Amino acid sequence: MTQLTSTMQQFQVRVNEQLEKHINYSSPASIKLNEAMTYGALLGGKRVRPFLVYAVGQMLGSKLETLDPIAAAIECIHAYSLIHDDLPAMDDDALRRGHSTCHIKYDEATAILAGDALQTLAFDILSTDIEYLLPQPQLKIINILAKASGEKGMCAGQVLDIAAENTAISLIELETIHNAKTGALILAAVQMGALTKADIDPQEFALLSRFATAIGLAFQVQDDILDITSDTQTLGKPQGSDQELNKSTYPALLGLPAAQQKAQDLYKEALHALSQLPYNTQLLELFSHYIIKRDK
Amino acid sequence: MTQLTSTMQQFQVRVNEQLEKHINYSSPASIKLNEAMTYGALLGGKRVRPFLVYAVGQMLGSKLETLDPIAAAIECIHAYSLIHDDLPAMDDDALRRGHSTCHIKYDEATAILAGDALQTLAFDILSTDIEYLLPQPQLKIINILAKASGEKGMCAGQVLDIAAENTAISLIELETIHNAKTGALILAAVQMGALTKADIDPQEFALLSRFATAIGLAFQVQDDILDITSDTQTLGKPQGSDQELNKSTYPALLGLPAAQQKAQDLYKEALHALSQLPYNTQLLELFSHYIIKRDK
Repeated sequence: MTQLTSTMQQFQVRVNEQLEKHINYSSPASIKLNEAMTYGALLGGKRVRPFLVYAVGQMLGSKLETLDPIAAAIECIHAYSLIHDDLPAMDDDALRRGHSTCHIKYDEATAILAGDALQTLAFDILSTDIEYLLPQPQLKIINILAKASGEKGMCAGQVLDIAAENTAISLIELETIHNAKTGALILAAVQMGALTKADIDPQEFALLSRFATAIGLAFQVQDDILDITSDTQTLGKPQGSDQELNKSTYPALLGLPAAQQKAQDLYKEALHALSQLPYNTQLLELFSHYIIKRDK
Repeated sequence: MTQLTSTMQQFQVRVNEQLEKHINYSSPASIKLNEAMTYGALLGGKRVRPFLVYAVGQMLGSKLETLDPIAAAIECIHAYSLIHDDLPAMDDDALRRGHSTCHIKYDEATAILAGDALQTLAFDILSTDIEYLLPQPQLKIINILAKASGEKGMCAGQVLDIAAENTAISLIELETIHNAKTGALILAAVQMGALTKADIDPQEFALLSRFATAIGLAFQVQDDILDITSDTQTLGKPQGSDQELNKSTYPALLGLPAAQQKAQDLYKEALHALSQLPYNTQLLELFSHYIIKRDK
């Protein structure tokens, strides 16, 4: 097992324990809601965003106890967005991470509410005392997550994405969608991790943000590529679903070779930003490589 | 115009201005999403929760500038919950506050996302710098709102409410649903207002909480009564919709006279809590009376 794989697994186990702890209150008011939240949040997933929180935070010297709630919170937001994206009124997907989507397993109302409650849980977790973190950066971290997931970030990305179905859009429009829908949260993961360092240097913060923007877009380009080149079993979701919804993708707009080149270029951009940081960036370099080489 | 009516109107105007300011960014990423959020949040409404934030905060000597973001945030949460509750998969309502519900005016996907983004906006607003409020109580205020609206509060209440359709439930179960679905957020409004006072006395905080719990339940009992005794035009939503969904209500379980008595008792309980506070509680007394006397 490579260093990256083993570290990713460690962080996956860690954030899953955190999510279980936070979702499984001793006496939930509604067992059904609690189960649907657990189902939506704990059924597999690469845990890319928690990984970034942990990797960036650790690189800067923060303790794992400080990073735990932040990693759990951003995964709650991601999990809620997947549950809502899969709904019949949205992408209408029956399969996610190799299992039935939340509204298929439960019902639509429960899935909507489980998503709602997971979003709330993120802000609940983040506004509870966090070890070794001062109130001021804690508020800033909450604000970054809110801005990344709301009207100017992830939610807007999903609206634009749906509007773009069956429509020819330009490369710039596609990039706007992806930056909002996926990029904003990946950027937030890195920035939240960075802000756990009390005296984070503004220039280092800017370099980390540049790194995050590049891998965020690379992640999406690779997702588009995989929708064409992979298969349903490996992906854990229906292969070709973008094409079926007539979604504009990088391979559709650029052709496959140029889309692959685009992912390469973004990878190099990420590495360039990392190279200017006075920390051990090896784990983030390996991760950047994984982003454009993964097959699911 | 009575003192209560004019103060309620003042606060309504004020929170509406706040909501407009917060929703209408200069350049929203998606105009459609922005419009749906505005539609959902600004189309009428009594603004009960913002009123409580302002009334309690002012009574304790806090400035309106401090209370503005808190009032706006809690109304964002309330507005999001109404948009989602009205969805076809939930209560399937076409009319709200005398207008088409959000998913009728726009579409289901946009309504889900507008609700999602309004929830996020609440936490965005609350984690931005707030005048005259220290970071520590600010975090506490965020946490109260999150806990009141999530898995143990409002979201759980809605799941339990849906599960109780076409089912005979006990008075205790009905009270559990209402405390979670409506009571939790009304309690949060009062507690958030109270926490803007830097050195709020724990016993005063407890008395205010008792007041809030009583009027929160009284509000819901009166809502149930109005569903029977009022008419669609006055209500701005279909009269008799609870009966149509076979929802358990106070009048259904207790009979109309006993339900009216229950509202009276809760009103007295609220006044009793207020009477022990060393502040000018007149506005809150008038409001408590309004809660059980309102016709919409």
